[in-house]
Amino acid sequence: MGTALLLMAHGSRNAEANDDLRRLADEIRADGEYVAVEASFLELAEPSIPDGGRKCVSLGADRVVLAPYFLSAGVHFRRDLQAIRDELAAEFPGVVFTLAEPMGRHPLLREIVLQRAREATNQSS
Amino acid sequence: MGTALLLMAHGSRNAEANDDLRRLADEIRADGEYVAVEASFLELAEPSIPDGGRKCVSLGADRVVLAPYFLSAGVHFRRDLQAIRDELAAEFPGVVFTLAEPMGRHPLLREIVLQRAREATNQSS
Repeated sequence: MGTALLLMAHGSRNAEANDDLRRLADEIRADGEYVAVEASFLELAEPSIPDGGRKCVSLGADRVVLAPYFLSAGVHFRRDLQAIRDELAAEFPGVVFTLAEPMGRHPLLREIVLQRAREATNQSS
Repeated sequence: MGTALLLMAHGSRNAEANDDLRRLADEIRADGEYVAVEASFLELAEPSIPDGGRKCVSLGADRVVLAPYFLSAGVHFRRDLQAIRDELAAEFPGVVFTLAEPMGRHPLLREIVLQRAREATNQSS
């Protein structure tokens, strides 16, 4: 028993973008903080978010944090993710499923943008 | 003369998401590191990326860093951004336009996801 982390991205036709999330899941899994860490996708890539949730449960989680890998989540989008959370909670009554906030507005995003800008300036100077 | 930062997002039908980028531009502008800091959008919101670039030039920039506010940029997407950069460079031969890397794979993204997950766990416990 323990907490699992289910990373959720939109999914892309660009395999490289999907692999970025899988790589992130691998890295966090290696930390050992979570009993399971799975990458999942709303569309265009596998596994789906519900399948990712099921895998977390099969790996022994009694709590699953659904973490959006999105800069911002519109109303439409939050509703979709909330509905998936609710379906998983209904399917596994003994497991707590919690939806985390998207990454948007986190102060560290500003640091990332500024670092990328500085890298570009240094390369071209 | 100096360097401007042109933040570029996809643009969303969700006004809140677009405002997130404008707020980020405001914050970075307040730092005073750049001669101009503008938010711009590929579609669905204003200003467009070319118009944002023109504004940077009108504000006195002789160098503009185009910084994608994206977690990952697929092949299709990089090509679009590169084409916009090239058009701006042709329109303003005296200004250097440099395209920065997207935010994806930056190590701080992992920290943000983990913090969001911990916030969710603390709220529900």
